[in-house]
Amino acid sequence: MQRIAMLGSGFIGRFYADSLQGQRSRDKVISIYSRREESAKKFANQYGCTHWTTKMEEAISRPEVTIVCIALPNNLHEEAVLLCCKHKKAVMTTKPLGRNATEAKRMLDAVEKAGIFNGYLEDLVYTPKFLKSMESVKNGALGRILWAKSRETHPGPHSEWFWDIEQAGGGCILDLGCHCVEITRSFIGKDIKPVEVMCWADTQVKPIDAEDHAIALVKYENGAIGQFEVSWTFRGGMDLRDEVMGTEGTIWSNGFLRTGLEMFTTGKGGDYIAEKAESNTGWLFPVGDEINDLGYNHMFTDMFTALEGGKAPKETFYDGYVVNAILDAAYKSAKTKLWEPVNLEVWRGQTGITRHSHLQEYDADHYLVKEEMTHYGARKVILKNKHSNKISEKIIGDLGAGLPNHGL
Amino acid sequence: MQRIAMLGSGFIGRFYADSLQGQRSRDKVISIYSRREESAKKFANQYGCTHWTTKMEEAISRPEVTIVCIALPNNLHEEAVLLCCKHKKAVMTTKPLGRNATEAKRMLDAVEKAGIFNGYLEDLVYTPKFLKSMESVKNGALGRILWAKSRETHPGPHSEWFWDIEQAGGGCILDLGCHCVEITRSFIGKDIKPVEVMCWADTQVKPIDAEDHAIALVKYENGAIGQFEVSWTFRGGMDLRDEVMGTEGTIWSNGFLRTGLEMFTTGKGGDYIAEKAESNTGWLFPVGDEINDLGYNHMFTDMFTALEGGKAPKETFYDGYVVNAILDAAYKSAKTKLWEPVNLEVWRGQTGITRHSHLQEYDADHYLVKEEMTHYGARKVILKNKHSNKISEKIIGDLGAGLPNHGL
Amino acid sequence: MQRIAMLGSGFIGRFYADSLQGQRSRDKVISIYSRREESAKKFANQYGCTHWTTKMEEAISRPEVTIVCIALPNNLHEEAVLLCCKHKKAVMTTKPLGRNATEAKRMLDAVEKAGIFNGYLEDLVYTPKFLKSMESVKNGALGRILWAKSRETHPGPHSEWFWDIEQAGGGCILDLGCHCVEITRSFIGKDIKPVEVMCWADTQVKPIDAEDHAIALVKYENGAIGQFEVSWTFRGGMDLRDEVMGTEGTIWSNGFLRTGLEMFTTGKGGDYIAEKAESNTGWLFPVGDEINDLGYNHMFTDMFTALEGGKAPKETFYDGYVVNAILDAAYKSAKTKLWEPVNLEVWRGQTGITRHSHLQEYDADHYLVKEEMTHYGARKVILKNKHSNKISEKIIGDLGAGLPNHGL
Amino acid sequence: MQRIAMLGSGFIGRFYADSLQGQRSRDKVISIYSRREESAKKFANQYGCTHWTTKMEEAISRPEVTIVCIALPNNLHEEAVLLCCKHKKAVMTTKPLGRNATEAKRMLDAVEKAGIFNGYLEDLVYTPKFLKSMESVKNGALGRILWAKSRETHPGPHSEWFWDIEQAGGGCILDLGCHCVEITRSFIGKDIKPVEVMCWADTQVKPIDAEDHAIALVKYENGAIGQFEVSWTFRGGMDLRDEVMGTEGTIWSNGFLRTGLEMFTTGKGGDYIAEKAESNTGWLFPVGDEINDLGYNHMFTDMFTALEGGKAPKETFYDGYVVNAILDAAYKSAKTKLWEPVNLEVWRGQTGITRHSHLQEYDADHYLVKEEMTHYGARKVILKNKHSNKISEKIIGDLGAGLPNHGL
Repeated sequence: MQRIAMLGSGFIGRFYADSLQGQRSRDKVISIYSRREESAKKFANQYGCTHWTTKMEEAISRPEVTIVCIALPNNLHEEAVLLCCKHKKAVMTTKPLGRNATEAKRMLDAVEKAGIFNGYLEDLVYTPKFLKSMESVKNGALGRILWAKSRETHPGPHSEWFWDIEQAGGGCILDLGCHCVEITRSFIGKDIKPVEVMCWADTQVKPIDAEDHAIALVKYENGAIGQFEVSWTFRGGMDLRDEVMGTEGTIWSNGFLRTGLEMFTTGKGGDYIAEKAESNTGWLFPVGDEINDLGYNHMFTDMFTALEGGKAPKETFYDGYVVNAILDAAYKSAKTKLWEPVNLEVWRGQTGITRHSHLQEYDADHYLVKEEMTHYGARKVILKNKHSNKISEKIIGDLGAGLPNHGL
Repeated sequence: MQRIAMLGSGFIGRFYADSLQGQRSRDKVISIYSRREESAKKFANQYGCTHWTTKMEEAISRPEVTIVCIALPNNLHEEAVLLCCKHKKAVMTTKPLGRNATEAKRMLDAVEKAGIFNGYLEDLVYTPKFLKSMESVKNGALGRILWAKSRETHPGPHSEWFWDIEQAGGGCILDLGCHCVEITRSFIGKDIKPVEVMCWADTQVKPIDAEDHAIALVKYENGAIGQFEVSWTFRGGMDLRDEVMGTEGTIWSNGFLRTGLEMFTTGKGGDYIAEKAESNTGWLFPVGDEINDLGYNHMFTDMFTALEGGKAPKETFYDGYVVNAILDAAYKSAKTKLWEPVNLEVWRGQTGITRHSHLQEYDADHYLVKEEMTHYGARKVILKNKHSNKISEKIIGDLGAGLPNHGL
Repeated sequence: MQRIAMLGSGFIGRFYADSLQGQRSRDKVISIYSRREESAKKFANQYGCTHWTTKMEEAISRPEVTIVCIALPNNLHEEAVLLCCKHKKAVMTTKPLGRNATEAKRMLDAVEKAGIFNGYLEDLVYTPKFLKSMESVKNGALGRILWAKSRETHPGPHSEWFWDIEQAGGGCILDLGCHCVEITRSFIGKDIKPVEVMCWADTQVKPIDAEDHAIALVKYENGAIGQFEVSWTFRGGMDLRDEVMGTEGTIWSNGFLRTGLEMFTTGKGGDYIAEKAESNTGWLFPVGDEINDLGYNHMFTDMFTALEGGKAPKETFYDGYVVNAILDAAYKSAKTKLWEPVNLEVWRGQTGITRHSHLQEYDADHYLVKEEMTHYGARKVILKNKHSNKISEKIIGDLGAGLPNHGL
Repeated sequence: MQRIAMLGSGFIGRFYADSLQGQRSRDKVISIYSRREESAKKFANQYGCTHWTTKMEEAISRPEVTIVCIALPNNLHEEAVLLCCKHKKAVMTTKPLGRNATEAKRMLDAVEKAGIFNGYLEDLVYTPKFLKSMESVKNGALGRILWAKSRETHPGPHSEWFWDIEQAGGGCILDLGCHCVEITRSFIGKDIKPVEVMCWADTQVKPIDAEDHAIALVKYENGAIGQFEVSWTFRGGMDLRDEVMGTEGTIWSNGFLRTGLEMFTTGKGGDYIAEKAESNTGWLFPVGDEINDLGYNHMFTDMFTALEGGKAPKETFYDGYVVNAILDAAYKSAKTKLWEPVNLEVWRGQTGITRHSHLQEYDADHYLVKEEMTHYGARKVILKNKHSNKISEKIIGDLGAGLPNHGL
């Protein structure tokens, strides 16, 4: 059983507490730190915490606390982590780990030097859909992974600090891209080295200094491509979609806006709507169990099971550091307009990987380009001669029926 | 914290145990009863139960047990319930409560006489999608409920006893209809009396004595209609869909086959498929977190929270009894081909409800039939004269654009 | 090339004309009859008709007219048909054919006696989705058909005459049920005799004399079941969905509200919305090409190809008559609350069909109940002994992985 | 009425002919040219052409021909176009116009010099879904367009010549990217100048010289971004999806794999499947009316209506040239790894466009960053001070209910 000190009583702190203490959980948030006394008290009251404080170290250092959960703005992560190191307390930090890789590296070094348990709270690689997809990717259902894309876009964050580049460290790339990078990196393989990044970013709509829309490609050593699409300017709700393409299959995952629950309401029923809000009428797409569907339950289960078993969780500060390094390259690329290398001072995965061959043997003299059923019922192979490079086609069987295919 | 005796180590017993002990749960299955020693031992080993037995009473009577969970074939529910009464143990029973209302009524009377906690494990009114939908129905987003349908069809159950009418008590009506009846009854209002049932049932495909396909309508006192569609002959997986229609809106819920996760696989990747099984290739629709999505987590949370708070859970033996009474009427109707009354010896909901009026006033002389935007931009009302019954239409505004509508 | 006299200039007349003269069509509406001069003139002007009239016979009798298209309220069909007979003009009538089977039968007899081409304009068995589905049903992809359902619900028709039971002849059963009956009948087999009908109908919302919501089951001689769900009280647009279940497969078709085009709009863009209409903001689901998607193009192509080839079209007055007979039984059943026989004075399909056997042989002594892969990797068969009726299970292989299945 | 000479009797020639002569069309393919006599004869026979030939000029020069339709491999477009110029015949060419912009420019110059009608057969900007979406974009439903993406991926083309870089001129960028570029360019505005392109391309799977997977970003003068994702390595069918994001809304369009028609089949029914093909069992997603849904009907209607009206069609050789210029930049970028400028010798759209401002005024001293309903019922604005750049938040109302939003 875990006794948790929660640092931060905002939106994400509440999401964490709902998950940590939800259902029949044996864990408990016992201390809450918030910068504002009013918020700390309110949180303590709502979640039944025995202790609240506006002094960070006070929460961290309490002897009954077994683990510290950092749910603070990005610019306060490092301070909190260093205090955990000082008091040798297990620590979990919300995403992103740092505002950049330099900050992240300092935190990584600190926790490893202190020898404390460190968890990186990247919930979106713990969603039930992701876990199920990952299982299929691992057992080979998709063959060799060629491309993985993750998209997170919505109309912008709730809290003011996100919009302040000093506190946040960046815009939607840092806020949302960190999720996308870890999702796609997981599909491609966390032991495959990210090599370089090309990123477009712009401030298209919001009167802010940071970017509100960005798209990036991340090239991995084995030739696979990760992609992220992030924005604070999307209209229509929160769009969370992932796609993976392999040589033998594909996965499409929709995490939020299309999950099999659809409601139409005129908004005229009963006392439903106090004020006619745009998003409360017409076709709506509620999510059943947000906390479980967004991965919080499986994430904390992994964290605490690892902690109690003396093991590292699936996501550690090292992962947070790699993500920050990739995002740093994205930011640089958005400025230089060049593919920028991912600078990883520490790399703990495979090295010297070569690209997979794309040559599939058909017979001694030919490679196989494609095999298909024609719509007139024959089996056809398209071949490439190994010596002359000439393309030819060959009809083999004469039964079966194929589907027409577009693009000629 | 609950210490559970599980009766039954089959498919559903395992589903329950996975939920009960899942994530960071503080509850524990401590004793397992199975009719077969081998099964009991295997279950005890896998779920870490400290005690196993092939004698039902032995499991129930253990002093450390705080609640008994019945996961046995339908014909053994009553025996198990009576033993719980004898030992004054809180009890939860899998669905359906009895093989018919007579059996269910005896169990209801027994637990109420014994004064023990009784929970009816109807998981599908605890799915995150149902809970979210129910919330919208309750707060009026759909207006007055007119019709609620629930569909559960699949290619047939796993265990042999289901196919034996003696043990099961019936076919897909009893097995699947019990879910559907409680879902639709909840949407319409559990305090609204079910009045009569019309049911079609047939054995269309399977060489069995019970029905393998059935459709029924359940009329409620306020004029609302419940509907179920159940089958053991559906091809394509497990189809779990609910629909609710109200005067101000509609809800469509897809619980299993279309939840936002889609995978295509050729089946040629890695070691994925040992044998080329039909259902392991092509487009597949996995469910992320089956246990949570099917309602088990929220169900047991409600059960134990109620038990610990000295309250009745949302679903009690009384609900199970009402469901059985409705299904009895369905079985009778399938034979007599008549609308059959629902016989409820005990009714604890509202009585003397009258049907809602369908007359919406427009002005002193007219009722409003319909108001709409025409596609040529005008607002039009269709009215019915209160005295002459004559229908007329009236153009009001001349702005806006409507969508064409079919069916003339 | 066809020269068409159009009778009726309302909503459906315009839909027909848009289809008839759409794209690169060689056909032309040359004469338009409307009861109101203003409407006739407007239509003639918009569609380039050389002739307009407020006298029905004038339109029908014009020598250059090769076919008459009836797009009038239900109570005027018979008069129009008889005039076509008198002038020996090919005729096509919108659905339903009559207000009841008696009326329909008179029209059928008249056109057959006159020996004129007669087409029944049931567009929804000509939608691209229906045609594609039907092809799969015909070539056996679904095995033996067990059940077919069609649903059409929307917030009510546009024109006032629909709401007047005298002109319309009924409510949503007649208006929408005629579509559903012909769709499901086609899937089950138009040569299979409909035997009896059970129907629930009610006026739940609208201040009208006819029903605004109904559900019915239609039993066919081979044991298959047709189902329709129709309503004028649905909120959320026009819901057009069909389902077919066979022993080897299933089809789900969504004709209108979910066709792969999704739009979110705040409604604040440009001049988009003159008046903030409820249905013009939020998530919207437009249909790409309504005329083609609702079957009008393929319907008229079939009609004229048949006419020019001297053949009967796919849908004739005879089909309209069968539909009316089924709907008559539905109306009767809604009143008597009994399964009512379908009275067909003329039956041109198969007779003396027996129900399919549901006994699948496994070996000399057993029937096969079910074969499946268990999740622990074995192949399992559930058998029924032919003599003792005892159910047993048998494990066969031990490889492969199955999907868990609910409902125990 | 048009009398068409079709050049090319392959896959796309047949698709064109099916559309041109489909339904009740008044147009006719009267002459067919194919390089192979056998193919020409077969096509002439199937489509009722009165003339066939293996000499291109013979087909083009026939006096009764009113328009020539080029459905040949890319490397033969120019020769065919020049012959049309020589014989002053109206001409339509399949996509892409040329293998590169230089070739395209020569064709553009030739037809304009000859003064002949020229149509560019980009069917995917004529699909019913695209036309409907475009209408919404034009009337402002999405506000200012920020980003438009088009994706076309499938397992590779049918005909051998596609795989031969000499005949095709490129790989999937040229084959599929041409569709995507014109779709996204249309949404952003065909009069907005494309400025530069960043492209990743690779040969990941196929043993060919051209690319089999590519992703690109196209920057437009007003700051909007076009994106394409193309591949010949996708498994699961043909994936055709478009997305558009604007300041006031979004559109998602699925053109092929999810259009509202879903079928499951075990493949064991009747004579359905001659050989157990992987793609003929399990869940399948047929398209109702491929020819209409892929835009062919609306495309030819526009072409011929324009031709007969003496106007230019929506898509001309000039559009084909712009597309080629963008693709040339993509190819160059894939090699140089730089953003490459789009070289347009001729630009006929707007010039000197400046980027839209992203500063939305709130009051004299502040810009508005975001306005939202909090989940505790208050209306909140986030503001940026115009002078200090400081971010602040302000609570305004206190009613209403918002939806929780992720990513903090």
